[in-house]
Amino acid sequence: MTRVGVVGGGQLARMMIPAAINLDVDLCVFAQEPHSPASLAVERIGDYGDFEELWEFAKNVDVVTFDHEHVPIEHLTELQDRGVAVSPPPEALALTHSKVVMRRALESLGIPQPLWTVVKTAQEADEVAEAVGGFPCIAKLPTGGYDGKGVRVINSFADIEDWLASSEVLLEELVDFSRELAQLSARNKQGEWRAWELVETRQEGGVCASVAAPARDLSQEIVSRARDIAKVISVEFNVVGVMAVELFHCVDGRVLVNELAMRPHNSGHIFTELSRTSQFEQHLRAVVGYPLGATELVAELGVMVNVFTEMVPTRVKVALRKFPEAKLHSYGKEPRKGRKVGHISVVGHDYDVVTTIALGVSDLLRDSGYD
Amino acid sequence: MTRVGVVGGGQLARMMIPAAINLDVDLCVFAQEPHSPASLAVERIGDYGDFEELWEFAKNVDVVTFDHEHVPIEHLTELQDRGVAVSPPPEALALTHSKVVMRRALESLGIPQPLWTVVKTAQEADEVAEAVGGFPCIAKLPTGGYDGKGVRVINSFADIEDWLASSEVLLEELVDFSRELAQLSARNKQGEWRAWELVETRQEGGVCASVAAPARDLSQEIVSRARDIAKVISVEFNVVGVMAVELFHCVDGRVLVNELAMRPHNSGHIFTELSRTSQFEQHLRAVVGYPLGATELVAELGVMVNVFTEMVPTRVKVALRKFPEAKLHSYGKEPRKGRKVGHISVVGHDYDVVTTIALGVSDLLRDSGYD
Repeated sequence: MTRVGVVGGGQLARMMIPAAINLDVDLCVFAQEPHSPASLAVERIGDYGDFEELWEFAKNVDVVTFDHEHVPIEHLTELQDRGVAVSPPPEALALTHSKVVMRRALESLGIPQPLWTVVKTAQEADEVAEAVGGFPCIAKLPTGGYDGKGVRVINSFADIEDWLASSEVLLEELVDFSRELAQLSARNKQGEWRAWELVETRQEGGVCASVAAPARDLSQEIVSRARDIAKVISVEFNVVGVMAVELFHCVDGRVLVNELAMRPHNSGHIFTELSRTSQFEQHLRAVVGYPLGATELVAELGVMVNVFTEMVPTRVKVALRKFPEAKLHSYGKEPRKGRKVGHISVVGHDYDVVTTIALGVSDLLRDSGYD
Repeated sequence: MTRVGVVGGGQLARMMIPAAINLDVDLCVFAQEPHSPASLAVERIGDYGDFEELWEFAKNVDVVTFDHEHVPIEHLTELQDRGVAVSPPPEALALTHSKVVMRRALESLGIPQPLWTVVKTAQEADEVAEAVGGFPCIAKLPTGGYDGKGVRVINSFADIEDWLASSEVLLEELVDFSRELAQLSARNKQGEWRAWELVETRQEGGVCASVAAPARDLSQEIVSRARDIAKVISVEFNVVGVMAVELFHCVDGRVLVNELAMRPHNSGHIFTELSRTSQFEQHLRAVVGYPLGATELVAELGVMVNVFTEMVPTRVKVALRKFPEAKLHSYGKEPRKGRKVGHISVVGHDYDVVTTIALGVSDLLRDSGYD
């Protein structure tokens, strides 16, 4: 039985467990804390930032993969040097470790992306901002940002004085987009590549709130462009596993890469119900070198809504009674303000119906009126 | 978090794990052996036949349920007396412990079933056999039979002399059936009841080989009759959890109950891919008292084929490469002659296509020609 070591015990590792059960893969999770969403499969608890701890974990598995992108690249390179298979490989993961590295890499491939530049000190002239179309523009910390953290809309460098004191900052064009899209795909060790349908993601406060799949009213040309972008990145950077490419669909028709994730991603959760192969199963197939599963849809369409509120059992019951079609995915997390603790998926053949159900469950989980 | 204790660590307990993860149910398995299919969720290893061991397990969970039907009824009654919730309750499980008890119970409800009688000694006159239409007829050991074991077609009592030396024997009419059907349904603690589509099961050597869902060419009247039978049994015997009713569809048009199972059942595996709610999720919802999930189909139809041969990785790869639409479910079992070690599910909109894929995978797992 192939032993897949997952660094990180979050919900992505948790949702790999069902796929591992079906494929008879021995999933071993290296978590940072005793009570993690993936605790059922946790084999070791420790600090992935400490190479020796990572090595003790990695030396006993057939392949190392990830629930998150925080493991230092030098650790992963060292693991590879010691003969451990790392999927996706460090060169692919490096793209997600620094947004500046990512922008440079995408530029080298001619991938369309927002105008960008790097600013190192507040003393630099405003002409730096001109390179991204002037103020207002987007400022991003190159590393450590997620879910809207480390991202600001700025009107002058005074707005990022604190950041510039300790870091270079990525500046990006404030893109006039009509919506955000995400292209999920997977590539296995042998180079086989498959994509899912393009989806539309909706953010609230910089955090993904919901996903509609497939994205509506798309021309075949946009669909092809998104697939081509994902395929080029996958192949050129030797991605092995699932990759999410987050895209802006601009008012002027451009499709630009916003972010990359080299792992299963929130924007692909709907495919657990909507596609023949979930992103978690596909990720495991890819990293163990199995052929990839079919990604065609089993239903016409679906909507996924994230849950940020505690899953109080009485409320869950009320919600599931009212909406028996809804599929609930709990992450086994203690609720904290703004923390994703689960998601709801609904599939069907009418967007409005499916959306009403998904949002209905979400509303009832917030306050059912019965407790 | 609700703690559900499952007695038995087989593939049914194994396949409850994904549902438990999604619903955030704490699944605790009481297995008999160290390496069981459900080992990921095993909390205790021991002998369920020993009441004290069972009690040590049961006293720490919110509800006890089952992967199999072998726990002595008196143990379950004692657990109930000590305040442990047992689902399904002992009175429902009793129907599956003895085929004679089941026949009597179904008779009391007027449920259609084959002619039957009980024979206690070989000395009884052949007129006993007349009650079931004469020889040849079916002889069954009342307890302990499964997958064709404990069942014989007999032409005289000489054929069951060995059995009659130590047990009474159930005799049943040799039914002239055109096919076998199964009606899966679930009922929760609150009495909510939902059924899945009626399926057709195909046996080879007394063992389920494949399932087609929904069963083809059924009149609405047969569909209603099967549902009504399942509903009456569920309600009258206070079933809580999933129940499978195996049926004969006779050449003369009758629909007769063959067997009952008070748990998720091989005939319902296809619903993991084919229905909005799998039988494993439904079983957990039922026993923890959650509202039941919708059982409508997400695709038009599906076929499930059991796997009896070792899942050799090279063969699995060849099979999955050729058939990316197929979903594999491995049970993590050592192969033994005639032992189910997994199943394959394929859903779609054309029976022939779907069947070809499922059987194609099955053939390649037996011998891919590549290893």
